[in-house]
Amino acid sequence: MPPPWRHGFESGIVTRMDLEETVLEMCRNARRAARVLATSSEIQRNAALGEASRRLRASTSALLEANARDRARAMAAGMSAAFVDRLTLTEETIEAMAAGIDQVTLLPDPLGQPIAHWRRPNGLEIVQVRVPIGVVGVIYESRPNVTADAAALCVKSGNAVILRGGSEAFDSNAAIASIFCAALAAASLPREAVQLVPSTDRRAVAILLRQKEHVDVIVPRGGESLIRAVAESSSIPVIQHYAGICHTYVDEYADIELAQRICFNAKVQRPSVCNAMENLLVHAAIAERFLPPMGERFRTAGVELRGCERTRRILPYAKAATDADWDTEYLDLILAIKVVDSIEEAIDFIRAHGTGLADAIVSEHRGRLRQFLEEVDSSAVFANASTRFTDGFEFGFGAEIGISTNRLHARGPVGLRELTTYKYVVYGNGQIRE
Amino acid sequence: MPPPWRHGFESGIVTRMDLEETVLEMCRNARRAARVLATSSEIQRNAALGEASRRLRASTSALLEANARDRARAMAAGMSAAFVDRLTLTEETIEAMAAGIDQVTLLPDPLGQPIAHWRRPNGLEIVQVRVPIGVVGVIYESRPNVTADAAALCVKSGNAVILRGGSEAFDSNAAIASIFCAALAAASLPREAVQLVPSTDRRAVAILLRQKEHVDVIVPRGGESLIRAVAESSSIPVIQHYAGICHTYVDEYADIELAQRICFNAKVQRPSVCNAMENLLVHAAIAERFLPPMGERFRTAGVELRGCERTRRILPYAKAATDADWDTEYLDLILAIKVVDSIEEAIDFIRAHGTGLADAIVSEHRGRLRQFLEEVDSSAVFANASTRFTDGFEFGFGAEIGISTNRLHARGPVGLRELTTYKYVVYGNGQIRE
Repeated sequence: MPPPWRHGFESGIVTRMDLEETVLEMCRNARRAARVLATSSEIQRNAALGEASRRLRASTSALLEANARDRARAMAAGMSAAFVDRLTLTEETIEAMAAGIDQVTLLPDPLGQPIAHWRRPNGLEIVQVRVPIGVVGVIYESRPNVTADAAALCVKSGNAVILRGGSEAFDSNAAIASIFCAALAAASLPREAVQLVPSTDRRAVAILLRQKEHVDVIVPRGGESLIRAVAESSSIPVIQHYAGICHTYVDEYADIELAQRICFNAKVQRPSVCNAMENLLVHAAIAERFLPPMGERFRTAGVELRGCERTRRILPYAKAATDADWDTEYLDLILAIKVVDSIEEAIDFIRAHGTGLADAIVSEHRGRLRQFLEEVDSSAVFANASTRFTDGFEFGFGAEIGISTNRLHARGPVGLRELTTYKYVVYGNGQIRE
Repeated sequence: MPPPWRHGFESGIVTRMDLEETVLEMCRNARRAARVLATSSEIQRNAALGEASRRLRASTSALLEANARDRARAMAAGMSAAFVDRLTLTEETIEAMAAGIDQVTLLPDPLGQPIAHWRRPNGLEIVQVRVPIGVVGVIYESRPNVTADAAALCVKSGNAVILRGGSEAFDSNAAIASIFCAALAAASLPREAVQLVPSTDRRAVAILLRQKEHVDVIVPRGGESLIRAVAESSSIPVIQHYAGICHTYVDEYADIELAQRICFNAKVQRPSVCNAMENLLVHAAIAERFLPPMGERFRTAGVELRGCERTRRILPYAKAATDADWDTEYLDLILAIKVVDSIEEAIDFIRAHGTGLADAIVSEHRGRLRQFLEEVDSSAVFANASTRFTDGFEFGFGAEIGISTNRLHARGPVGLRELTTYKYVVYGNGQIRE
């Protein structure tokens, strides 16, 4: 028998109805709530968010208690210390969650803005207006702060959200979600605009991913295996990226000092994230000048280097890179280095091994920059800057729900604007079609 | 045994490789071609299109011969006269195809434009640039003009296209596609930017719809059953609408003369298309004044009226509408009419029975217009104009590949701009993330 918290039925949360009906009912409620949110005012949505952050801060001790239950269960189940760490809420992380909500509240309203506006010869006035997508499903792993983060972004952008967090954080997530529900109600908005799937049963996810009619988009947040599992079984469009194998190409015309700074930042500043560099490509004409000091800096920082043969002739302490290395997202202090003979070889290499998330060139040559920026078709391409800037905050979006390598709808950092769609409002005075 | 033209294998077009490998090879070729097209100049793409229209006109007799083979087979297979009619090319339709290509050629280049451009406090310059989606698959029925139409739109927008038309039009489609290939080559662009699936085997579609890695978007063109079949078996995103159940709501504050003109146009001008009106909603306070002359006009035009009870008290000659009528896309001279007590009832009705394509209100009351335009969340909402304007040409897009009721990426008319996506180009001078 699974432990009681593994499944909403046993914990008494799902009682009367079966799982399918529970999920369906949530989806229908979300659709109704989405309609109200879509026509709500910015003031009302901001009031709900302000109330949520206030209540979150006021509920610190209750949240810590709920979180303690989650942690106790995770420890009893023999989860690793790192796992329990990701699960853990503290006074500081609760304050950070509340501050995050405040930050989203202060962002400009993405709704109602005219994206374009024109007049036809027959007098019709056409306005393309930003509207919410509708119902967003967010599927994530064990960090409970995603609950607050995703709920705030969805409410701000006028979307209803169905949250499905990791089962290990169920009590924490439920406590945070219920704070949002109460805050919505206090602002006279429907509580069902933020709902947590009230069951830790894995089948609930499969059911949710089939509700194409009720859910408009799915945002998975977590590791590649979670995202692949979601993308493969979803009949609902998924905003996603699988992995970030980001490249920096150091051109023969690079400023060596600048190239070192950028490459070091791209690899070392935070190696565990998708926009960190995994493969470094170096033009042969600069390799002997660039690689020795660069290699030294990496070695000092504890970066394991894996190089092609030509790299190893210059950096004998580098390990030999295998074919698999060029396609590996290390998310760690490991870097694969390859010497290339031309920018074309670099671009072809990126096409073959990149994941289309972010790639950079370092060069002082305008023609080379232009060629790279045009021909490398990743969601973000950088000239003389670190790939680590591929991020909603760094782009100035104020917040992000993730990064997309999709080619449709949203590419790159996904902020509030990317959580909207548009409709055409057409004003006439009796026009008919001839 | 199927007739020889039903299957490329038998017709000798697919010989060496099996179907799966043929489709895969096409997809890989399309991806390579798409890369070249993505960085091609407007001049080059326009040259290819100019060449295609010139060659199309010059090949009129060859096209008529190919088409005669298709028609002979369709007639031998006992297809209806209407079916053969849709299949038929004439000198006029060939000229219209060529003129359509010319029109697309003259449209502004959708590529390379900066959509947005801003500077971050750290000096990074971020430009959001329009780029092609990549590889587009178009699946359509028996009209061979779609081949030229889709190919022109895709080449203009820098996308490679894989075309799969109705098997009955195979010879005509192959002739048109080969003209595009020759025109591309003449403009030094890859022939593989326009490819027709070289087999009429239905399994080819299923194989194509699984090539998520190679094909970025599918555009089905045809009836609802084709679109549903494609959407249900595709693992690639589909730009689509299933059906157009469009409403016109005649408010109590409507100008009766204007309302009549708009409703008559929306139903009668071209009843067979998705943006024609299927359901008419009339506010009870105006029904007795509006319906008698309106009903008379419809009756005179041969429109069969099906009404709710209250409608039939005013228009005794209307048939009784069944529940199914409110959810039927007639695509014919049939109209369902319902009397409602309020704008709220009208909006709720549209939410329940509309398909989100286009809905209109006729009213002189600003508050009512505003409420309707805000609360009805269809891809296009009209105030005092006919739903028939939901169309890429009428919107001023110059051309359209279809109409979308998706909520992501493209909503409403899908023109050249909607066949593009964007990437972020970021210019730095050594910025690193702190």
